[in-house]
Amino acid sequence: MDVKMDAAALNAFLLQAYPQIADDFRIERVAPMEADIRLLTAERHLRPGGTVSGPTMFALADLGMYAVTLAMIGPKAMTVTTNCAIDFMRKPAPDRDMIGRARLLKLGRVLAVGDVMLYSEGQNAPVARAGLTYSIPRD
Amino acid sequence: MDVKMDAAALNAFLLQAYPQIADDFRIERVAPMEADIRLLTAERHLRPGGTVSGPTMFALADLGMYAVTLAMIGPKAMTVTTNCAIDFMRKPAPDRDMIGRARLLKLGRVLAVGDVMLYSEGQNAPVARAGLTYSIPRD
Amino acid sequence: MDVKMDAAALNAFLLQAYPQIADDFRIERVAPMEADIRLLTAERHLRPGGTVSGPTMFALADLGMYAVTLAMIGPKAMTVTTNCAIDFMRKPAPDRDMIGRARLLKLGRVLAVGDVMLYSEGQNAPVARAGLTYSIPRD
Amino acid sequence: MDVKMDAAALNAFLLQAYPQIADDFRIERVAPMEADIRLLTAERHLRPGGTVSGPTMFALADLGMYAVTLAMIGPKAMTVTTNCAIDFMRKPAPDRDMIGRARLLKLGRVLAVGDVMLYSEGQNAPVARAGLTYSIPRD
Repeated sequence: MDVKMDAAALNAFLLQAYPQIADDFRIERVAPMEADIRLLTAERHLRPGGTVSGPTMFALADLGMYAVTLAMIGPKAMTVTTNCAIDFMRKPAPDRDMIGRARLLKLGRVLAVGDVMLYSEGQNAPVARAGLTYSIPRD
Repeated sequence: MDVKMDAAALNAFLLQAYPQIADDFRIERVAPMEADIRLLTAERHLRPGGTVSGPTMFALADLGMYAVTLAMIGPKAMTVTTNCAIDFMRKPAPDRDMIGRARLLKLGRVLAVGDVMLYSEGQNAPVARAGLTYSIPRD
Repeated sequence: MDVKMDAAALNAFLLQAYPQIADDFRIERVAPMEADIRLLTAERHLRPGGTVSGPTMFALADLGMYAVTLAMIGPKAMTVTTNCAIDFMRKPAPDRDMIGRARLLKLGRVLAVGDVMLYSEGQNAPVARAGLTYSIPRD
Repeated sequence: MDVKMDAAALNAFLLQAYPQIADDFRIERVAPMEADIRLLTAERHLRPGGTVSGPTMFALADLGMYAVTLAMIGPKAMTVTTNCAIDFMRKPAPDRDMIGRARLLKLGRVLAVGDVMLYSEGQNAPVARAGLTYSIPRD
């Protein structure tokens, strides 16, 4: 399947549709059924001790799945999360960006299913892993 | 089992341990194995259209489970989320607080398991439902 | 909402559609958005030590959600599980039936979302808890 | 990390500890933090239409995670599932074995976290995907 939106198109779309988070995340790479997204870690994402907060990691996983889905189906803003199961496995490294690697496992007419691995940049062991389902609006 | 921290004690603990979110959430009620928590919905929690964002709902669920766990075991800040499975079922009502109703289903030595139902205040149909597991540090 | 199939109708449907499991499970009670289902625990469901196996508990949760969904929408056999998140919390009591208490939290056109609490009969503390999503076929 | 049990050792262990399922599953391959497991699909695993049943797929995922965990920690039978989130994405092909590819993402002292992709043998698109957590008993 061809990609309908590349990283630049996705970043432009997010900036227009979700301006309030445009400074937090950046789509880095898009390929068929895959997308990488960066959390531009800043003070507001941290918990005491310098750890990235759980809700921020959830947001990274959720946005990664959103990005890879829109990459394949085009700019349908009303595509919404129906389910997310996330395992938190390790503490994120303090003061580093995080990278989410999203892949679509199924792209149906009604549902998209995928998973996202979350890493502290430069580390091999994943910090968290999420499986997500999105509901795709009908045209 | 007795409650070790009541709502006032939990709010004081959160204010001290997590000052950056103290304006967003408030523990409203604590009972054995139960806690209710309020999201004081503000502009920064919303997505276009007035919907409360997914990460904010995740934070409400996560904090509800944290509150009910600490209510039973006392102020162990290092209690951390290991797993969350969340189903988003309905759009939250715009411009309303949200209420999370958390209950502990198991309180073991190592793991606590519970669930949290999320509501827009004043509505009966749940907006989301989350099951969470927390890891409890050893003394 | 009215119930479209009662317990007797559901048991008759399961016997006809899934004869291979009709000896294992029995729908006990149906009410709007709720159903109780019994595992008729037998040797083939057990693991060493007399514990009910994980797959059997999964089957009980899955069938509970199926029952409550069909109770509300009628006999659409092609209704299928898309997602299940299950927490195993306690060992089931040996040599006892298990009871699954299912409730529908959302019944949409395309998706049904619910949860099922699993108990060893006669005990208050739940053995497991599952959240499930079913995809409903279009007419 | 070294593997403590290879495929032959795991199959021998399962035959001794879980004789009732030894005809259903076979560990095919073990590598550090990875294991492949085969469902020897038979009539008793099927639903009407020839589809492998949901509980059988759950069992395959669960046993895959069990296998990869024991491969790394050795024969600790009391290692138990605490959580499983499974997405069913496609119908399994009828009359084919299924393959589960398990990988450990975290092997801690108390918890092991991993995921398992399920395939109908000979097909590229996954049938299901599961994330699982196991609790490891203390020595």
